[in-house]
Amino acid sequence: MGRVSAPTSSTYRQPDRSEIRIETVLHALADPVRLDMVRQLARCEGELACGGFDVSVSKSTLTHHLRTLREAGVIGSRPMGTTRQNWLRRKDLDALFPGLLDGILAAPR
Amino acid sequence: MGRVSAPTSSTYRQPDRSEIRIETVLHALADPVRLDMVRQLARCEGELACGGFDVSVSKSTLTHHLRTLREAGVIGSRPMGTTRQNWLRRKDLDALFPGLLDGILAAPR
Repeated sequence: MGRVSAPTSSTYRQPDRSEIRIETVLHALADPVRLDMVRQLARCEGELACGGFDVSVSKSTLTHHLRTLREAGVIGSRPMGTTRQNWLRRKDLDALFPGLLDGILAAPR
Repeated sequence: MGRVSAPTSSTYRQPDRSEIRIETVLHALADPVRLDMVRQLARCEGELACGGFDVSVSKSTLTHHLRTLREAGVIGSRPMGTTRQNWLRRKDLDALFPGLLDGILAAPR
């Protein structure tokens, strides 16, 4: 018998570092709500549960934004109980696009 | 009599540094053709006429891309004869978002 497949890895696709594209990252960050979520992740310097974001959007919109950020390679996420924990992929982004994230986070609000 | 108005300044709106918004800049840069145009401007370290860009798009599409970049504050432009000269607003972008442009230009193609 083969391995038991892990549904989360296919449902929650996260690109490897080599698959991360600058255009996709920029598109993901160009939305004000997503940019604010990235700021919150940068501030907390750790993981945030999906319910831990301070955003004024519906749960389904939040899920959409998290998916866009995750598929672009901006954030990583892993299941934890009935929710998911999310973090900023700072190491990957800093290696690929040195200065990009700091420049964005330094932007006037 | 009042001054003769300069139609180009209203037709070709260019935001002041204080009006440049990170979300608008990121959106402008998230398009592959526009990102390539910015790379070309960064390489030439000077000004490029509208016809000087090496892009595989129609003239009207090029005009649209130039407008998007200009209105976002990524590039500046000025009339010169029958064409316009364009340049990267590196000083403004580096002051507002230090590291952003270098990080983007360092991105793997």
